[in-house]
Amino acid sequence: MKRTWSLAPLGVCAFLAAIAIHRPFPLPAGAADSAPDPAVSAATEACLECHALLHPGIVADWRASRHARRTPAQALASEPAARRLSSDSVPAPLADSPVGCAECHALRADEHADAFEHNGVRVHVVVSSADCAVCHAAEAEEYAGNLMAHAFGNLEDNALYRDLQQHILGRTSREGDELSFGAPAEAVKEQACLYCHGTRLAVAGTEERESDFGTMSFPVLTGWPNQGVGRVNLDGSLGSCTPCHTRHSFAIEVARQPYTCKECHLGPDVPVYKVYSSSKHGNLFESQGKNWDFSAVPWKVGADFAAPTCAVCHVSGLADADGGEIVARSHRMYDRLAWRIFGLIYSHPHPRNPLTSTIRSPDGLPLPAALDGRLAAESLIDEAEQARRRATMQGICRACHASSWVEGHFARYERTHTETNAAVSEATRLLAEIWSRGLAAGPDRQGSPFDEAIEQRWCDLWLFYANSTRFAAAMAGGGDYAVFADGQYAQAQVIKDLHDWLSHRALR
Amino acid sequence: MKRTWSLAPLGVCAFLAAIAIHRPFPLPAGAADSAPDPAVSAATEACLECHALLHPGIVADWRASRHARRTPAQALASEPAARRLSSDSVPAPLADSPVGCAECHALRADEHADAFEHNGVRVHVVVSSADCAVCHAAEAEEYAGNLMAHAFGNLEDNALYRDLQQHILGRTSREGDELSFGAPAEAVKEQACLYCHGTRLAVAGTEERESDFGTMSFPVLTGWPNQGVGRVNLDGSLGSCTPCHTRHSFAIEVARQPYTCKECHLGPDVPVYKVYSSSKHGNLFESQGKNWDFSAVPWKVGADFAAPTCAVCHVSGLADADGGEIVARSHRMYDRLAWRIFGLIYSHPHPRNPLTSTIRSPDGLPLPAALDGRLAAESLIDEAEQARRRATMQGICRACHASSWVEGHFARYERTHTETNAAVSEATRLLAEIWSRGLAAGPDRQGSPFDEAIEQRWCDLWLFYANSTRFAAAMAGGGDYAVFADGQYAQAQVIKDLHDWLSHRALR
Amino acid sequence: MKRTWSLAPLGVCAFLAAIAIHRPFPLPAGAADSAPDPAVSAATEACLECHALLHPGIVADWRASRHARRTPAQALASEPAARRLSSDSVPAPLADSPVGCAECHALRADEHADAFEHNGVRVHVVVSSADCAVCHAAEAEEYAGNLMAHAFGNLEDNALYRDLQQHILGRTSREGDELSFGAPAEAVKEQACLYCHGTRLAVAGTEERESDFGTMSFPVLTGWPNQGVGRVNLDGSLGSCTPCHTRHSFAIEVARQPYTCKECHLGPDVPVYKVYSSSKHGNLFESQGKNWDFSAVPWKVGADFAAPTCAVCHVSGLADADGGEIVARSHRMYDRLAWRIFGLIYSHPHPRNPLTSTIRSPDGLPLPAALDGRLAAESLIDEAEQARRRATMQGICRACHASSWVEGHFARYERTHTETNAAVSEATRLLAEIWSRGLAAGPDRQGSPFDEAIEQRWCDLWLFYANSTRFAAAMAGGGDYAVFADGQYAQAQVIKDLHDWLSHRALR
Repeated sequence: MKRTWSLAPLGVCAFLAAIAIHRPFPLPAGAADSAPDPAVSAATEACLECHALLHPGIVADWRASRHARRTPAQALASEPAARRLSSDSVPAPLADSPVGCAECHALRADEHADAFEHNGVRVHVVVSSADCAVCHAAEAEEYAGNLMAHAFGNLEDNALYRDLQQHILGRTSREGDELSFGAPAEAVKEQACLYCHGTRLAVAGTEERESDFGTMSFPVLTGWPNQGVGRVNLDGSLGSCTPCHTRHSFAIEVARQPYTCKECHLGPDVPVYKVYSSSKHGNLFESQGKNWDFSAVPWKVGADFAAPTCAVCHVSGLADADGGEIVARSHRMYDRLAWRIFGLIYSHPHPRNPLTSTIRSPDGLPLPAALDGRLAAESLIDEAEQARRRATMQGICRACHASSWVEGHFARYERTHTETNAAVSEATRLLAEIWSRGLAAGPDRQGSPFDEAIEQRWCDLWLFYANSTRFAAAMAGGGDYAVFADGQYAQAQVIKDLHDWLSHRALR
Repeated sequence: MKRTWSLAPLGVCAFLAAIAIHRPFPLPAGAADSAPDPAVSAATEACLECHALLHPGIVADWRASRHARRTPAQALASEPAARRLSSDSVPAPLADSPVGCAECHALRADEHADAFEHNGVRVHVVVSSADCAVCHAAEAEEYAGNLMAHAFGNLEDNALYRDLQQHILGRTSREGDELSFGAPAEAVKEQACLYCHGTRLAVAGTEERESDFGTMSFPVLTGWPNQGVGRVNLDGSLGSCTPCHTRHSFAIEVARQPYTCKECHLGPDVPVYKVYSSSKHGNLFESQGKNWDFSAVPWKVGADFAAPTCAVCHVSGLADADGGEIVARSHRMYDRLAWRIFGLIYSHPHPRNPLTSTIRSPDGLPLPAALDGRLAAESLIDEAEQARRRATMQGICRACHASSWVEGHFARYERTHTETNAAVSEATRLLAEIWSRGLAAGPDRQGSPFDEAIEQRWCDLWLFYANSTRFAAAMAGGGDYAVFADGQYAQAQVIKDLHDWLSHRALR
Repeated sequence: MKRTWSLAPLGVCAFLAAIAIHRPFPLPAGAADSAPDPAVSAATEACLECHALLHPGIVADWRASRHARRTPAQALASEPAARRLSSDSVPAPLADSPVGCAECHALRADEHADAFEHNGVRVHVVVSSADCAVCHAAEAEEYAGNLMAHAFGNLEDNALYRDLQQHILGRTSREGDELSFGAPAEAVKEQACLYCHGTRLAVAGTEERESDFGTMSFPVLTGWPNQGVGRVNLDGSLGSCTPCHTRHSFAIEVARQPYTCKECHLGPDVPVYKVYSSSKHGNLFESQGKNWDFSAVPWKVGADFAAPTCAVCHVSGLADADGGEIVARSHRMYDRLAWRIFGLIYSHPHPRNPLTSTIRSPDGLPLPAALDGRLAAESLIDEAEQARRRATMQGICRACHASSWVEGHFARYERTHTETNAAVSEATRLLAEIWSRGLAAGPDRQGSPFDEAIEQRWCDLWLFYANSTRFAAAMAGGGDYAVFADGQYAQAQVIKDLHDWLSHRALR
């Protein structure tokens, strides 16, 4: 299987010419100094010989990246506020070469179940968050505390969520008068929920493939491809960095634009991008953002950008025009979040622990609130912690808004929790009556709360409409979207429908 | 409370450096001459000393604006076609300084209920359309004639709209077999309908706040924050300019891009942006708009832009490449609108008067058409006026389309009114039969037409689908959006649902 | 009617100055050489004299185009890989002038039913695909093989589609307990389905119009305006080039951006743009596309662009950074498509013949699959052809993805066909039972399958949700959009609704 690649029958000269000439897109700000690019490692050079021809898009993407144009040692020499890697040091062999193919795909080979011999090097297909942590230790540690890092287990280990998933994705069959849903296949889940939540990767064996270089052997992966936020990697680490730091350019310019968050936060269950793009903030981004600098570290309010993107409020380190810190960067997105506002039946204070499948509500469900809204308070942050997080977020708001504006906005936003939770509560009381009258089979009769038409109509309310209203209140102050597009109008319609269904069926 | 700000313990030098150095974004076209910026007034300089540090985003936004870089006197000296302010003159103290903090926030102090003593100056938090009118008199006067300027009262003073609002926003409760809706709280309305319509601002008292400068006193405002188009201001004036001329940059570049209109014209009740972005016009804007000049006054077809945005057709003054006027600028958006196509049960000729709550339909409702479609003709413009407005709009179309194109387009568009109104009429007949058979409680039995499930289903038709179809016909000529996304497909489905519900319930 | 235009009482000098000075937007790459623009033909110059003043937007659009700045002879001299016209030669009078007004609108005059005498020239209003084919022969021929070229007849000649169209667009009336739908008017169809599918143009007569040049005579066209993909032109040719090569700039930069495809591929029946814009590919386009070169021919992966747009995968010729061909350009979009995934009840292998109205399913319907899913196999491509097309598409994927990624992606995608077709089959069985129990009137009782509420609910599943899921699998790998926005969640809800409706009505 091993080959001497220098003999490879490929147009190496043409390839080198291509590498040398093509700098496809504007260099990232901060990388455009006049110093020549550092030389790649010999291992990476060997990779590039073939892969630049096999996958020109990957290589071009990487060539345009900071990873290709700086060594970790150079990056470590930046002044602290402008440093783009957080590890105190980087081990010697890595520190002095650009971060190329081999630096990541041959890193920590012994830890990766998918590592395989390839041209004399043990490489692995899937780079994990633990690989990235070698240089980006703080971000990896912060991210590990997020709900997102645990998105696979939080879904798959929660019996109620699995039940919901089955009644969305499972194959249906009707026998007599009964409609039933089968357990969804792994391939179906990977295509659906796990696309964003992340799959559990595994090595299923080895396959031989014919290539220009003869028969070669590769691992066969299950759960692949996947770039979900909570992917269970082949070194056992949780989470993937590539959903936001996309592919081989890893560009902070991409991560900071809302299109990145939109990949998973767009549907009616979490209409973040839709609400943002109908807000004043979204308007300014769409109208003027083409002139902003999305790469500056630190990121200066007013100097680099004029209105927030998702990253501004939730992740990025911000400074004023003098470089004075407004808020520290944190990949623990919850540092600025007092509430969890979507995905659950009721909104509630943020969970203390990112592993949510072990939470139990007062009525014994794997949920942060009972069906009647009572909170699993011991699993959730307390008011003092909520206040701290609210204050952190408000500090960002005040960079562009006076205090009375900020306080008025937050008062309305938190009022929205009260209102939407009251609507959910009323709808749930209606469903409970439907169940208690035997018009549908609920948990009291060992029925799934998700397998009948009227139950799914109830889901519409909390899964889509209540949280759409909350998002609109959180980001935009409300408006047309909140009322008419998946917001309060639809919320009222569900309650009327439940009432109409119950009234009619009860008469039967 | 008064302080000598020069003693303020702040990094004033650092601040001044920041102000001097940071010109964050490309200067607006027309402002980028080589002349030095005029000096701000002493009052504004005092404001900036603290607020540049407290709210760097606000100050940076303003620094990038024309307001910061020109004095009214300089602006008045432009040739008439290129003038950006319409008042014949500007009073002396204002005319010779850039339009800074104090020029607006301390203007007409005696008129503003929220004016308060702040560092020796009487300032007010909320700048009103009447403040803007000092320099922009024509725009303020034109805008005052719009439905938008009266959007608060047109909603709140119309009993039928209030009823609809209650059955969307009100809290529900179910007693026995009755579902009822409470009156929505002000905070809920402010978060929802009034976000776009505008709130009624009021001063609720005064509060002391601790600040870096000791305890300070501020007015407490209700209805704040708000930037709705029909906001009732604290000087009694109606309407806000900031929904379109956003925040402290006031940039015409923003107002002329469709993202601004999208803030309130996006949901299914008024899907303007969605239809636009699926039209040929929207395609050209999204594909090529980054190369267009959104700041030129006058705005030259072909030279500055290649396809219309919302502003092109509805507001802006347009010229050909020689500067020959195609259409005059008007902030009376209805100058080019023969029809009102959304928000009401039937489309109809535009109202004569922007105060619509006093209109009465032939059947006595506060609506421009009876439930059976008969028009309140005396309150609506006549055919001659419709023809004038149609001709004005068609003059814009003809800048890029031959006459046969334009006439064919308008013939189809007006046919769409006939068709959608026929569909609404049929649905309303079905609902009337539901009411007359006692299957739901309509106005004939003192019932709300909005509080039952089947009634809200009827609303879907006229509130969402009929007008979506009309918007598609108006802007795009129709297509996939009009048929399948909230258009004719959904319209047909409502009628089938009403029929199915009636047929089934009537059998009971 | 003939006039000597040099005497026209217009500001010709001003016009010429305008033409000379205004180069509104950045020149298309490749056109920006230093050579002076070639002179337009005398005939085109005569057109421009008036029309630049009458329709400045059209003329400016054209002035910015390659058509205005190159002659066909110059374009033919490009090296083959960079040629932008495919005809081997262009007839002499056309070859040596830029492609101006007269070159297209007076071309093949005898073939066009709308040709009319205008200032001494026989011109036609509507330029057809056969006109474009004079210079772009290969594209016209390729395009003629597409379903799109036949989109008018494929809709209008299919009785089942006409029936669906009638029950969406037709006027409803209710007599007794029967709801009926009239045949939709031509104007309504032109506004709706035919906007994208294309109208059948016809000349209805001649009209006189008063103009600045006296009374002039023009043809009256029915079906106009229209720019649908399958327009039946007045020379008998099928298809229009302007839906993608928009209006008078004909810019490849526009055609290659996804906003063009979005014009017709946006609604829930074909949510291509929505899915794309929530995918990683869409994210990269929206975040970084402003720096890409959309005009290069050939189009180099990595050098010109970093992620696919619609055109990359479906139409464009692609090369690696050295110019080595990755895939040949083809306006036969199906060359890369193994499946047809929308618009029909079941997804299925692509039809062999673009004329689909003659296809008959095993149960005798004008459909590629029976109501129970059995394929009209003899009308569809076989597995070998599917494999060829899949391989062509995968070759594009591999420019940026390793083989295991590509294979994993396609395995999941094709699994999605199995799953969505199973869901459609289950829903159809439910509807068949509804029909067989006489609860609705289906084809077995000479009823339309589209005229009752429960039938349209069944349509929702296959017309919207099954294909949304497939598009998400095809383009993005799935995720939030596929599950919650018109995908699997909604698919499950339809099945539950059909079951609930049947169970309840059967009890009656």
